[in-house]
Parts: sequence; C-alpha cells; structure tokens
Amino acid sequence: MKQGKFITLEGIDGAGKSTQLAWIVELLQDAGKPVVVTREPGGTTLGEQLRALLLNKTMIMHAETEALLMFAARREHLDKVILPALTQGQWVISDRFTDASFAYQSGGRGLDSGKLAILEHWVQGDLQPDLTLYFDVPVEVGQQRVYQSKSKDRFEKEQADFFQRVRAAYQDRAKQFPERIRIIDSSRSLADVNAAVEQTLQPLLSHE
Amino acid sequence: MKQGKFITLEGIDGAGKSTQLAWIVELLQDAGKPVVVTREPGGTTLGEQLRALLLNKTMIMHAETEALLMFAARREHLDKVILPALTQGQWVISDRFTDASFAYQSGGRGLDSGKLAILEHWVQGDLQPDLTLYFDVPVEVGQQRVYQSKSKDRFEKEQADFFQRVRAAYQDRAKQFPERIRIIDSSRSLADVNAAVEQTLQPLLSHE
Repeated sequence: MKQGKFITLEGIDGAGKSTQLAWIVELLQDAGKPVVVTREPGGTTLGEQLRALLLNKTMIMHAETEALLMFAARREHLDKVILPALTQGQWVISDRFTDASFAYQSGGRGLDSGKLAILEHWVQGDLQPDLTLYFDVPVEVGQQRVYQSKSKDRFEKEQADFFQRVRAAYQDRAKQFPERIRIIDSSRSLADVNAAVEQTLQPLLSHE
Repeated sequence: MKQGKFITLEGIDGAGKSTQLAWIVELLQDAGKPVVVTREPGGTTLGEQLRALLLNKTMIMHAETEALLMFAARREHLDKVILPALTQGQWVISDRFTDASFAYQSGGRGLDSGKLAILEHWVQGDLQPDLTLYFDVPVEVGQQRVYQSKSKDRFEKEQADFFQRVRAAYQDRAKQFPERIRIIDSSRSLADVNAAVEQTLQPLLSHE
C-alpha cells in the first residue's frame, strides 16, 4: 500500500511557518509529491467552527476545556483529512499539530503534560508525524513580525511571558523527540532558513 | 463547609425528564433547598454553542469527536456552574450528565466504554452525582410522546434501534452503580412517577 508522509510545522506566531509552508510545498511538488496543506485547530468544517470558538477573544474557558476542544478538532481532522490523504499516498503538511497542544496548553496554560499525553494517546493511538519542523525564534522577534496591524485573537492577546513558556515547551519537546522534531533557527535570513528546511526534508525525500 | 447535593436526570427523550425536573425542583424548594437547574450538553455560554454544533443535524462528526465535545462542554459546566453552586450549598439538578455519554456515545454509537471511562476520569476525577434518577421507558412510548410536531436534531433523527441501544446502556449502567443510579419506571401514570421520585429523593433530604 502506498503511503504519504505526514509533516507538521510548529512554532509561535511570527516564527515564519506560513512562509516556510509555501517553500515546503514547492520542494515537495518539485519532487513529484502530491501535497495536502491543512492547519490546526481547523482543517474540517467542524474544526473551523471549533477554531472560531477557541480563538474568539471574548470566549472564557478552562484550560482543560481548551485542550479537549483542540483534541476534538484533531480527532475530526485525522478522520476526515489527514488519514484519508496519507492512505491515498498524499503528503500532508499541517500548520501545527499535537506538539502545539503541549506547547500552548501545557507550557502556556500550565496543564499537566501527563494529562495531555492521555488525550494524545486517546485520539492518536501511536500515530505521530513522520517529521516535525519546529521554527524557533525569540518571542520578541516573533511578536515584532506579526502584531503590528492585526487585531489579536484569544491566544495572541496573551503576554510575552506566556509565549516564553510556549517557546520553552516547544524546545523541551524537541529535545524529548530529537528524531522526529527538528529545530530550525528561524531568526536567520530567509535564504538561510529556506536552505535549512530543504536540508532537513532531504532524507525524507531521498528515502522514498 | 456547607455543600449542596448533585442530582442528575437521565433517560431517552420522551421519558418525562422535563416534567419530573419541575417536580423535583418543587420538592427541593419545599424542603428549603436552594436549587440550580442546568442541562447537558450546555449549561454555559460555550457549552450551549457546543450543544448547537452537537445537535445540528447537518453536522457530520466521528463518534470520538462527539464524545470529546461532550466532555469539553462538561468540563466547562463543572467549572462554571456545577462546582461553584455545590460549594455555595446549592442543590444542582442537571438534565443529563456523564451517564448520557455512556448511553449515547457508547451504547448508541458503539464507542468502547473503557475509552469513555478514561475521559470521565480525565474530566471529573472522582466526582460523581450524589443521586441519578434514570427514567426508563420503552423506546416506542418515548418516541410517541415527543416526535410528533418538532423537527428532529442530530440525535433525534437516529432510528429506533439506536435508542434501543441507548436504553440498554442506561439499564446496564444502572445495574453497575445501583447505589447511585435509581431506576424510575416512567411508563406509569404521572402520579405514580411523581410518587416514585418523591420516595427516591427522601433519603437524600432527610439525611441532611
């Protein structure tokens, strides 16, 4: 059975995920891979409605509720988008996945990571991305890049120390799973980041 | 610390929960208890929005997604309504709670009850209602009582065999927790059901 690869992009806002997503799509298409691009929270009709609730800055919710909603959207995302695409041999690139729950709900909000791991296993079983690119950037740099003109959502309106904890949790998680999660220093020039991404993807492409 | 009691009402639609809820409120008020009435899914601003997604008959979702959303709404319900009210000494009457997840998502949809028990413990820890009244009625009787004039939601549009499984799961659960869950035969006359409810509540009231 042919089987696509599942690649996830992680990082705080302003880390350059969107720019690199476009670059990764180009690299994969150049290598002849059919690509599906998706995002979390969201990716399905229901998931996008949950995303609207989760990002609504007037919505008040317990951190555990937030985690359950993220995993509800993820269950649907796996069922309707990710697993069918992989089974059909497509490569799936998701802008954020479960590492973001560990970074935001555990690192940022302080939920116990063991409790999150229970939900992770409940929803995913043993499924993990084939490769995760974590775009690491200092919080100040990320915030300068994004928060100039737009109005902030429920996560973006958090203070800098929240994002420091999110970044630290991402870094911890990358250390915990060094084979799967590759750290890309995203504070460098675009050309350097592009080159690092290309180099990181190479083994997955040549392994085919 | 004064502490209210937590009473939940369970049963398929048409089992007479709403009618009995009003009767229970009257009995408790006559006994001088401050009463909070709530429902699931729902009970909070976010919960009611999740309820709208869950009952929307055009919404397609995986049974596990449905379970995660039910427990997300429940987490919020506990945090914002149930636990604060109990702590203030109020009696909380909820039209459906976790037994409904076992009846509908496990019995009805076929989810593994062990998986649901993981979510139950994740969200509630050891918290359980002080008393659950399960109003048992044959599916045909329940359906005759409710589905005449109204348009059906995502659950109500299920076929009779779905509700047979829901009823069987409720009955199993009542056998599993006989101390907490009391079965009320709801196919009897209103006066008889009222009397059975009053008798069932008595120990909780006189125990105070």
